[in-house]
Amino acid sequence: MADKKLSTANYKGTRDFYPEDMQFRNWMFETMKKVVISYGYREYDGPILESLDIYKAKSGQEIVDKQLYDFIDKGERHVAIRPEMTPTLARMVAARARDLPRPIRWFSIPNLWRYEAPGHGRLREHWQLNVDIFGVNSVTAEIEIISLACDILFAFNAPKDSFRVKFSHRGILSSFLRNTLSLGSEKEEAVAKILDKKNKITQSEFESSLLELLQNPNEQLTLIYQYLNSDVDTVLQIPGINEESVRYIQEFYDKIKILEISESVEFDPSIIRGFDYYTGFIFEIFDTNKENKRSLYGGGRYDNLIGLFSNEELSGIGFGLGDVTLENFLKTHKLIPEFKRESSVYLTLMNNSLLSDTLLLARELRKEGIDTEISLDGNQKLGKQISLAEKKGYRYLLVLGEDEIKNNSVVLKDLKESSQIIILKSQLINELKKVLGI
Amino acid sequence: MADKKLSTANYKGTRDFYPEDMQFRNWMFETMKKVVISYGYREYDGPILESLDIYKAKSGQEIVDKQLYDFIDKGERHVAIRPEMTPTLARMVAARARDLPRPIRWFSIPNLWRYEAPGHGRLREHWQLNVDIFGVNSVTAEIEIISLACDILFAFNAPKDSFRVKFSHRGILSSFLRNTLSLGSEKEEAVAKILDKKNKITQSEFESSLLELLQNPNEQLTLIYQYLNSDVDTVLQIPGINEESVRYIQEFYDKIKILEISESVEFDPSIIRGFDYYTGFIFEIFDTNKENKRSLYGGGRYDNLIGLFSNEELSGIGFGLGDVTLENFLKTHKLIPEFKRESSVYLTLMNNSLLSDTLLLARELRKEGIDTEISLDGNQKLGKQISLAEKKGYRYLLVLGEDEIKNNSVVLKDLKESSQIIILKSQLINELKKVLGI
Repeated sequence: MADKKLSTANYKGTRDFYPEDMQFRNWMFETMKKVVISYGYREYDGPILESLDIYKAKSGQEIVDKQLYDFIDKGERHVAIRPEMTPTLARMVAARARDLPRPIRWFSIPNLWRYEAPGHGRLREHWQLNVDIFGVNSVTAEIEIISLACDILFAFNAPKDSFRVKFSHRGILSSFLRNTLSLGSEKEEAVAKILDKKNKITQSEFESSLLELLQNPNEQLTLIYQYLNSDVDTVLQIPGINEESVRYIQEFYDKIKILEISESVEFDPSIIRGFDYYTGFIFEIFDTNKENKRSLYGGGRYDNLIGLFSNEELSGIGFGLGDVTLENFLKTHKLIPEFKRESSVYLTLMNNSLLSDTLLLARELRKEGIDTEISLDGNQKLGKQISLAEKKGYRYLLVLGEDEIKNNSVVLKDLKESSQIIILKSQLINELKKVLGI
Repeated sequence: MADKKLSTANYKGTRDFYPEDMQFRNWMFETMKKVVISYGYREYDGPILESLDIYKAKSGQEIVDKQLYDFIDKGERHVAIRPEMTPTLARMVAARARDLPRPIRWFSIPNLWRYEAPGHGRLREHWQLNVDIFGVNSVTAEIEIISLACDILFAFNAPKDSFRVKFSHRGILSSFLRNTLSLGSEKEEAVAKILDKKNKITQSEFESSLLELLQNPNEQLTLIYQYLNSDVDTVLQIPGINEESVRYIQEFYDKIKILEISESVEFDPSIIRGFDYYTGFIFEIFDTNKENKRSLYGGGRYDNLIGLFSNEELSGIGFGLGDVTLENFLKTHKLIPEFKRESSVYLTLMNNSLLSDTLLLARELRKEGIDTEISLDGNQKLGKQISLAEKKGYRYLLVLGEDEIKNNSVVLKDLKESSQIIILKSQLINELKKVLGI
């Protein structure tokens, strides 16, 4: 008699978070938040729907044309589900730019949507930690952001050698493309993208894709190699490089040496990070593991984020870290702990006439901060109740039967050790707190 | 030179959560979560986009026709932003119905969207705590759910007399409409909706709207008043009332007396809660304050939630509590605390040459669990830095100047008391933890 049933599959490219998945997500978000809050950043949020206009004006062409979840609402407004948080952030900061005490330190963990072909590690929705600081024009903001970005990985117990921070400056790249290579502006982005890909392709692929774009390949290729092999000091020897930008990152590099993370930080002139968006310092953090050798996250400085909404100028620096990327990193480096249910208890209901005593004990325990799930079926045999508690992941089980009630006691079973002790009711709270470590 | 700027207004009917709003929201959610977790419920989540089909099949006609944010995605799938969580919950439970250990105790705090005319307390998006238990067929599940629902309000320090829980049973209402009043099935819902509105309209409005629907008004009105004035015992004297349903709520009423919340709980036969959805026990919690005398939240038992997806039968009981409704309740009863920044510090940067010392001190404090925001501008005078710290809501400020570095000390300013003490660096962590209460 099976009538036609709806599919239980979720919408393509999305995830259902069952309790064990949600526990992992919560652990990841809480760990990130703790670090960000320890630097004085405050959480914000905005609606997941925004007017299409702000993405048309701020997001890249590819996002708007191919990846947006946009539609006309019932009131004829053209809206979109947010593909990124920055336009919302800019809108909110612009609305109160004059009132917010500076520096403005904000973070958020929004759910973001892009219509993409789902594939390995590429979903249509993800969460992304966004951290931004506004109103500091000196390199001290870069130092704080890099330090914070590294501390997030350390908070997950990532070893020092598990990642590298590579930084550059948009002004160095721009001056190299424009002044040193004398590319027409229409070729600059194409060449930049090839430089960015260098470590993912073979040398001959790299060179052949460049040759299509270069006018004086011999001379220009030499300059490109000189550029890519330069360090913070030697990059200035290349003709046409913007000196101010180099001085800025020299100052950053000099000052970050105060911190022990500086060992993990290096100049990499091939870094790009969104061609149109950033205007100053840029950085990217890479996994060093060979199986997951990819960019984890990155960010940079933008000088005119709120310009679309306001005449005020406000320089900021920020980064975004996606939950799927982070999860891959944590898996690769075996940094995900086992989540156990060892600080709460499962309380049996030995028969239905004991419901009052059982409910009242549960209330008492909860009042004392001891999370207590109870069996609601007194017809179930003890063995069945124990096996349910085990399936639910509990280590500790309390038995309150007629004998225990007579003796003013409770039996505490440790399902992991297969042991049990009898505890007097008057001592139950203290004993339990000790056992559960709360 | 003001060129045309985009509006900083958010999409109509939505909210921007600036840090102070977010702090409130986080406090509200954390308080609710703590209670629900203390009963052993586990958090889940699903995607905010679902196939339109599941709302067509499960949600009321009004939602689907007028309130859905639905659209065709770039792959020609008809999808909708979730207007409620229950269809997602049913889909997820159905997908794993055989593997999940019972009772299944789940909760979520999803963001939900409905296209409505925005007005006082009516937005297009809100968050809603959803709590559900599946797989318990006895009244013990009702007792747990009512107890949990009340404990949420108590966790916000709501006084006992600030709310009342009114309960009934779908079977009592149905048998009254069908057997007692002998209404045709097409009139049942209309009459039920008038009964539900009784306390919001005058008696003459109540009667005149009923008269349009009744065939033997004299006789039927008498029965309606007898019904509305009945209690758990006298309701059975009305001819045609379903006895099994009455026995069920009598058992509930009898057993809930164990708990002190029973004083706040009463039978109310006019309760409806979604005409098509619930199949058994139903309840609604009302604010008792005259200025906000409205339903806060409610729920009930449904016998076949997963039936659309699965042939398995699984009875559940649950409720939903919206953040806007709860916020109104908390405001009306003055239950919202002041959120202060008194457990973290603001660290000054006295001049730019002290950047190393300042950064290192901040890192040390954070490592010890002391949240530390630092000034990043050593050119700002102390007075300016203090006033910024105050604007950011800090009570405690640390000054690390050249004198302090020489003397191995730090100055701790209490901006609320306008006092300061000098602390030796070796004692700083302990002293600060005492002052900050961490």
